[in-house]
Amino acid sequence: MLDFDTARQIVDREMDKLRFDRTPEALYEPVKYILSLGGKRMRPALGLMACSLFNQAVHLAIKPALAIELFHNFTLIHDDIIDQSSVRRGQPAVHEKWDTNAAILSGDVMAILSYQVLADVEESQLKEIFQLFNQMALQVCEGQQLDINFEDRTDVDVNEYLKMIELKTAVLIASSLKAGALAGGAEMLDADLLYEFGRNLGIAFQLQDDYLDVFGDPGKTGKKIGNDILSNKKTFLLIKALELAKGNTRKELLKLIKGKNANPKDKIRDVINIYLSLQLDEISNELADSHYSRAIMYLDRVNIPGESKKPLADFAEFMINRDH
Amino acid sequence: MLDFDTARQIVDREMDKLRFDRTPEALYEPVKYILSLGGKRMRPALGLMACSLFNQAVHLAIKPALAIELFHNFTLIHDDIIDQSSVRRGQPAVHEKWDTNAAILSGDVMAILSYQVLADVEESQLKEIFQLFNQMALQVCEGQQLDINFEDRTDVDVNEYLKMIELKTAVLIASSLKAGALAGGAEMLDADLLYEFGRNLGIAFQLQDDYLDVFGDPGKTGKKIGNDILSNKKTFLLIKALELAKGNTRKELLKLIKGKNANPKDKIRDVINIYLSLQLDEISNELADSHYSRAIMYLDRVNIPGESKKPLADFAEFMINRDH
Repeated sequence: MLDFDTARQIVDREMDKLRFDRTPEALYEPVKYILSLGGKRMRPALGLMACSLFNQAVHLAIKPALAIELFHNFTLIHDDIIDQSSVRRGQPAVHEKWDTNAAILSGDVMAILSYQVLADVEESQLKEIFQLFNQMALQVCEGQQLDINFEDRTDVDVNEYLKMIELKTAVLIASSLKAGALAGGAEMLDADLLYEFGRNLGIAFQLQDDYLDVFGDPGKTGKKIGNDILSNKKTFLLIKALELAKGNTRKELLKLIKGKNANPKDKIRDVINIYLSLQLDEISNELADSHYSRAIMYLDRVNIPGESKKPLADFAEFMINRDH
Repeated sequence: MLDFDTARQIVDREMDKLRFDRTPEALYEPVKYILSLGGKRMRPALGLMACSLFNQAVHLAIKPALAIELFHNFTLIHDDIIDQSSVRRGQPAVHEKWDTNAAILSGDVMAILSYQVLADVEESQLKEIFQLFNQMALQVCEGQQLDINFEDRTDVDVNEYLKMIELKTAVLIASSLKAGALAGGAEMLDADLLYEFGRNLGIAFQLQDDYLDVFGDPGKTGKKIGNDILSNKKTFLLIKALELAKGNTRKELLKLIKGKNANPKDKIRDVINIYLSLQLDEISNELADSHYSRAIMYLDRVNIPGESKKPLADFAEFMINRDH
C-alpha cells in the first residue's frame, strides 16, 4: 500500500500536469496562483492511499483526488473573502492580490474546473462518485454557513461546533478516502468505513488546529499565537470556555470578547490564562484523542489485512501528534 | 412537438417540485428567493422542446433543463455582486436583500445544487451531458470575465463583443437545446445543429436586449431607458458607435463617457442622438437579423420534418421581434 509521502509525490506530479491555459488569462491566473501556494495536499494523497488498499492501479483514483483538491482550493478563495482573511499560506489571499470580484469569479471557475476533472472518472463509477462529491460540496458550504452563523452568538454548544467542523472540514477528508476506495473497486461497506475513519480523523485534525492556534509553538507552526482569540473565533476552546466558566471568570471572558480596544497581547495572554485555568488544553486533547481512537476503530474494521492499513494508521497518528 | 408555453408549464411545475429543505436555512433562503422571482425560464423550456423533437418522453430532458436553470440563476447572484446591480427582476438583488457574503456562499451552493440535479441524468448519457455542462459553465464565467475586462477599455471591437455575448449568454441557450436533444436520443449531428441554432439565437437575443435598453418602450420593457448608457456598459451600440464616430462626434461621445457629473437625462439624450445619427438602430437590427437567419438555417438542417420544428422557429421569431 502507498505511504503518504509516495502518494503525495504522485499527487504533486499529477497536479503539475493540470493545464489551465484557457482564456481570458485574468480568470485563470488566480487559479494557478492559489495552487502554486502548495498546501499539504492531504486530501488527494489520502484518496490515493485509500485506492491502493484495494487496487494497485492507483491512477484510477487520481481524477476524484484532484477534483477534491481543486474544490478545496476554490473554497479557500471564497472563504478568505467571507472571513476577510488577507493571508493564505503565507502569501496574499486572492482577493488581496487581485480584488473581491476577481476572487468571486475565479473561485467560481475553479469549482467548475473541479467538476471538469471529476467528469473524467471511469464511466462505470461516475454516477456514484459524482453524487458523493455533490453531497460533500453541499456540506462544505453548509459548514461555512454555520461558522458564519456562530460569529454573532455566545451560546454555541460543543455539539453544534462539532457538527460545523464535520461539515466544513471533515467531510472533505472523509469523501476523499471514500472516493479513492470506490475508484479502487472497494465494496461499499469498506468505502463507508474509510469515510468514517476520515470523518473522525478530520474532526480530530480541526480540534488540533484550534489547539495549536493557542498552545502551539510559533517556531514550528509558522503562525503567530492567538489569531483565533483576537478574532473571537468560535473555536472549541472558546465554546467550551463559555460553557465551563462561571462567576467572575465568565464575566472576565465575556468582557475580553466584547472589548474592542484591548491591547492584542494582553487579550491573548488573558484568554489563554482563562483557558488554562479551565484545563482546556487537556480537555481539547482528550476530545481530539477520542475522535482519533474512533477513527482507528473504523480503520481496523476495513476488510483488509492490518499490515496494509499501516500507512493510513501512521498518517492518522502523525496528524494527531503534529505540532505544526 | 412541444410549443414554448406548454414546455414552460412543465418547467414551472418541475421547478416547484425542487425542494431546498436542507439546513442551515440562511444558506438556502437566497436560493429559494431568486427562484421565486421567476424569470422567463427560456433555457429549460427550450431544452424540453429540443428533446420533444426526438422523443415524446420529455421527462428525459427535465434534469439537464433544471440543472441549467439553476446554474443560470447562480450566475445571476454572483454577477449582481460583481456588477453592483441592486435590482434583479424588479426586486432587490440577493446581496442587497442579505449581504455580499450571503450572496457569495448561497451562489456557491446553488451552483452545486445545479450539479446535484444534473447527477440524476440517465446513466447512459451522464458523461456526455456532464461534459457539455462543464464546458458551458466555464464559458459563462469566461464571458463574464471578458465583460469585466471591457469596462476599462474604449477599444473593444465588435468581434470581441460578439465573442463575449456568445460565452456569457448564448452558450447557455445553445447548451440547453443540445442537452435536451441528447437526452431525447438525438444523433450528435442534430444535437450540434440545435446547439448552433441556439448559439446564434442567443447572440440575436442579446443584441435585442442591448437595443431595447436604448430604443425600447419603458411601458413594455418595464425598465427605464438608458441604464447601459449611464453605466457606460460596452454594449454593441456603444462599441459600434466608438468605431464609427469620427471628428467632433467621437470627441463628444468620449466626453459623454468620461464625464462624471453629467445630468443623467442629458447624458442619455445626447448618447441616443449620437446613436441615431450613426444609424445604430438599423445597424443593430440588421446584425441581430443576420444571427436570427443563421439560427433558422441551422434549425432547417436538423433531420426532422419541418412541421415538427415549427414551435422552435416560432419561438425564435418571437424572440427577435420582441419589444420587451
